[in-house]
Parts: sequence; C-alpha cells; structure tokens
Amino acid sequence: MKVILDGMGGDNAPFEIVKGAAEASHIIGDHEICIAGDESVIEEELSKHLHNRLKISVIHAPEVIEGDDSPIRAVRRKPDSSLVKGLEAVRDGKGDVFLSAGNSGAVVGGSVMLLGRIPNIDRPAIGSPYPLLEGGVAMLIDAGANSECKPRNLLQFGIMGSIYVESVFGKQGPRIGLVNMGTEKSKGSPMLKASHELMDEAYKKLGLKFVGNIEARDVPVGICDVIVCDGFVGNVILKMTEGVGLSIMHMIREKFTEGLVATIGAALLMGKLGELKNMFDYTEYGGAPVLGVMKPVVKMHGSSNAKAVVNGISRSIAFAEGRVVETVAKQVSEVAGLGKGDADDAGDTDRADTKEQDG
Amino acid sequence: MKVILDGMGGDNAPFEIVKGAAEASHIIGDHEICIAGDESVIEEELSKHLHNRLKISVIHAPEVIEGDDSPIRAVRRKPDSSLVKGLEAVRDGKGDVFLSAGNSGAVVGGSVMLLGRIPNIDRPAIGSPYPLLEGGVAMLIDAGANSECKPRNLLQFGIMGSIYVESVFGKQGPRIGLVNMGTEKSKGSPMLKASHELMDEAYKKLGLKFVGNIEARDVPVGICDVIVCDGFVGNVILKMTEGVGLSIMHMIREKFTEGLVATIGAALLMGKLGELKNMFDYTEYGGAPVLGVMKPVVKMHGSSNAKAVVNGISRSIAFAEGRVVETVAKQVSEVAGLGKGDADDAGDTDRADTKEQDG
Repeated sequence: MKVILDGMGGDNAPFEIVKGAAEASHIIGDHEICIAGDESVIEEELSKHLHNRLKISVIHAPEVIEGDDSPIRAVRRKPDSSLVKGLEAVRDGKGDVFLSAGNSGAVVGGSVMLLGRIPNIDRPAIGSPYPLLEGGVAMLIDAGANSECKPRNLLQFGIMGSIYVESVFGKQGPRIGLVNMGTEKSKGSPMLKASHELMDEAYKKLGLKFVGNIEARDVPVGICDVIVCDGFVGNVILKMTEGVGLSIMHMIREKFTEGLVATIGAALLMGKLGELKNMFDYTEYGGAPVLGVMKPVVKMHGSSNAKAVVNGISRSIAFAEGRVVETVAKQVSEVAGLGKGDADDAGDTDRADTKEQDG
Repeated sequence: MKVILDGMGGDNAPFEIVKGAAEASHIIGDHEICIAGDESVIEEELSKHLHNRLKISVIHAPEVIEGDDSPIRAVRRKPDSSLVKGLEAVRDGKGDVFLSAGNSGAVVGGSVMLLGRIPNIDRPAIGSPYPLLEGGVAMLIDAGANSECKPRNLLQFGIMGSIYVESVFGKQGPRIGLVNMGTEKSKGSPMLKASHELMDEAYKKLGLKFVGNIEARDVPVGICDVIVCDGFVGNVILKMTEGVGLSIMHMIREKFTEGLVATIGAALLMGKLGELKNMFDYTEYGGAPVLGVMKPVVKMHGSSNAKAVVNGISRSIAFAEGRVVETVAKQVSEVAGLGKGDADDAGDTDRADTKEQDG
C-alpha cells in the first residue's frame, strides 16, 4: 500500500509530520509513503532525519490550507495545497489512503468533493477510536462531521463503524449501540425512536449485532464496540471523557501530595498514574477514519507529533488493506431501500456541516 | 416554609423518604414538612423513627404513581396519588415547595399541568447541580426534560439557572455558558448560532454574565456556573461524568493493588480515594430544581436514601426562600420580545417531552 501523507497539515507540520514519516520508513515493510507538500521544504525536513529513501517520495504541493481557513472555500481556492494534491493522488490511484493532521472540516469536505461519496451513503462521518478504560478500544461514530442527523444517517454510521472495527481492529461481530437517554426502545426523541427501529430492521437483515439503546454512562466501560450518535453528541462524549479524565488525574496528583503519608503513597504509585494517563493519549490511537467516501482517509489530531504520525501510517495501511470501502458499499446497497421516508436531507451532504468541524 | 414531600415516590419509598423526613424534623428550625402518602402507611413508617411531631404532618393520598407509569396519563388517572395531592397542596398555598424522588416525567409533567408555567417561559427545565472536580458546584440546565430545543428555550434556561445559582447557591454574578463544539461564536448548528446571538443580546440587557460557547471538555473544571444545553446533551454530560468517574475509580483500585509496592501506596491513599468518590455522590447535592413552573419543585434521584432526603429538604427550603419563581418571572418578561422568530413550538410545552424523562 502507498500512504499519501499531508506534509503540511496540523500544528506541528511539517517538522513532526516528516519526522514521523522518516521513522515509519524503517518499519513499513513492503509499503510506501508519499508526502504532499512544498518539495524544497519537505526535502529539507527529510534531510534532518535518518530515513529509508526507497520508501519515501514527495508530491510537490506549494500551497497550505491553514487551521482557520474556511474548509470548503480553502479546498476550492487552493488547488495546489498539500491536502488537495494528496486527495487527488489517492483519487487517481497514485496512492491507497490519505492521511492528514490538517483542518478537520477541510479534510472531510475535501474528501467528499474530490473522492465522492460511496453510493447510498448520505453523509460521510468521522469514526473516532474510543479507548475503553478497562482496556481495548471501541469506535465512536460520528465524532463531529454532522451535528444534526436523520435515522438513515445513524443507520449508515453503524454499518460503517462495524465494518471498520471488524476489518481494522480485528474484532469479530462487533456490538453496535445507539446513544440515548435510556435503554428502553421507547426512549428519546421521535428521530431516535425511528433510528432504533430502522437499525434493528437493517442490522438483522445484514447479520450485524445491535445491542439497542445505550446510555452515555456505559460507554467508558465498553458496553459496545461501535457507539453511534450524531456529531454533536459524539463531540460531547469525547470531550467529556477527556475533561473528566484529566481533571481526575489532576486532582489525584493534588490530593495525593497533601500530607506526608499520602505523598509517600503517591510516590509509590507514580508508575501506575502514568499508565492511567496513557489512556487519554491520542498519539496512541492512529487517527480517526473518514468513513463513507470512495477511498480510505484518516484524520489525525491537529497536535500530532512524530509518534502519532507513525501510528497513523500504520493504521492507514490497515484501513486500506481491510477493504473497508468495498464492504461498506456492498452492505449499504443491501439496505438502501430502508429509511427513505426521512430522505428530506439527501443530497446535501456536500455541505457536510464543514464549518462545525473541530479544527 | 412548609415542604410538601412525596412520601411514595422513588425506589426506596416510603421507608427512606419518611426516615429522612424524621431526621430532618430535628434540624429545620421554624420550617415544616408535610408528607403526602397513604396515611396509615406513612404513620406506620413515622412510628419507626424518632421525629419531632410538631414539624411533621401528613396529607392522605392513597394512590401511587410507579416509576414505569406513563407520566402524563398517570397524573390524569391517579388524582389521589401522593404526587398529584402534593402538587395540589403547593398550588393551593398549603405548602411552599414540592419535593419528590418519583418518576421524573410525572414530576415535570405534573408540575406543568397542576402549577402552570411562568408567563413567557416556553418550556420548563430540570436544573441539575454539577459537582466541580476541584470543589464547588455549577448548575446544568436542561438535565433531561427537553431533548430538542429552540434558541428561546436555551435563552430561558440560562436565565433560570443563573437566578437559581445566585439565590440558592449564593454565588454572585454567575457565569453562563452555552455547550457547543468549539468556543468561537460561529460554531455549531444554525440553532446554536442563533442561540448564542440571542443569549448575548438578552443577557446584556439583563446584566447577566455570558461567557459564550463552552466545550464539554471544560465543564468539569468549572469554566462557568450555569451550563446551558438541551436535555439530551445534558443527560450525556451528566452520565459521562458519572461513567468516566466511576470507571477511573474502579481502575485506580485495580491498578493500585497490582504488586506489593503499589498495594502499600494504595493503602496509604485510601482516605483520599474516598474523598474522590464523594464527588460523585448524588446524595450530597439535594436534588434538582424543576424551573419554569409557578411554584418551587425539586426532583431527587430515584434511588434517594434518608440522607439524600435530608439534603433535599434543606435545598427545597432554600429554593422557596430564594424567591426564584418571582425573579424568573420578572427577568423573562423583560426580554420576552426577543427570539420570537423561532416560536413555532410555543404553546406545546404541556407535552414537555415527558416520555423522555430519565425514570
């Protein structure tokens, strides 16, 4: 597989991005990396790090899309940007997967515009790996691309998430859950009730495992492998996990250094505290797939460092090898007739709520 | 003040409810408690506990609304229930505040039906105390009464929350924040953008402190005192706090007892761990006010024990003494003209999404 890497996207580009590519070049076996960015800048960065030149090439792309650029406009007005050039390379078969730490809205919007949607997918979504507190990882979808959803969107998110978890995380028969205010199927707004019904019907047809409604409380303990919700709720779940987690860590550190006995206890436990902290470390999880477009695309955290890039490259290869796009296309076509009643937003996906992306 | 207590609502009714009333009877000074419930049952429970008989009376209400009753139907079909009799007593001036651990939907729906909405309030909401990880408490509103909201609803939630926090928590000039996917005012769905604009305008007029959009990540650290969101998002925030918090506690306990050194450390720290756990203890926070109806109503957690009831009684007295209803009526009337453009749901409040209540 050839990973097309956006050399200019993210807070630490190009330095950490290129450094990560250089590190990955030693360990990717038969695979290759192609970095999109200003050729002289990328080459200069490459020269700073030991790398396997046979594994790394460069696509010249002198323009840069910034974090605060309006996503869709940036994609249209910067045809020579690393993001546009990189996506075009994947579209044209010069690479197998696109990986970027850039502006989320531009990555999703650009993917839809340049790669196109998978037939029968109404809205692409971002699937975020969700580290479970007791080990393992689930996938939350949508993590922020669509702040308002229809039942059919949620249905499709579940299918895409399930296929990704099975193909890329290697988890057989993933359990799909719908985030709601209670577990009874009568819970929630009319939209959520309709979603529950539609998902139940479609997933039975496809042989997928639907655990029904789940409460936010049970997400961290791993009640399911695919957490389905709209992008606003997804954003709240991810950020509450981070916020509560980091606050507790902070408080533990404070409380555990009040008084001599506690300080001795804390000193004895510092290693364990470090393990806890790792759970909230996004660099470990290799980025979030953009699902529903015609080629594999992975969005990394904007603050990605070289380690995150190495993990992102490895995750991207697994994504491309997993043939997720093909499997999604097949499964959604089998249930394409379902839920058409709520189709009043079909076709507006190109808009993709891109202003709402979490930069 | 006279607190009308629903003697039959909640998982531990009547035993823990009456026990809590008995305990509170010794410490409420000039105030009184009146328990609604089957007279013989309540008297029998009372006889089991030392109590100050001068402070406790009983309203005979032989019917019980169960946790799984359909809320609105139950209120209509059980006119002799403790909930209906208790609300009527408050409506008719025989008490100052109603306190219940019963079915949330029935408490909110019954309050709207029997007490009526405050003029210019379109939808009453539940305000939940939100314990901040570093000490203190904020108020989250709406905690689950309205899963879909209009800008005007959110505007009113902020006003009600701010008045409650100032009058009952005694916090001067509370900061109001709107939960969104990012802090820039251009973030979020059109509904949230319109809400931001409306809140900004109205709060300036009322002299309230608006900190603008906040991210879920910053809620636990106390970025504001009044957390405004729709009831679905509110439910997710509360349950994620609980879920992440309890999972981390569980994991700390596990990790800290792996290996001798860590076990010694953990033993030294157990007291501190206990302090952490208290933060998630709903019995400490005295229940959630139902805001926007014509009399003070407080909803306690369904699993409330005697301690929670004692705290609920004390919080209810503060709510009634704070003259929150009067202040809300005055402030909302001053900005009643704003946001009328989104009024397509005005008048449907009586429906109150009651089926979506969290049991």
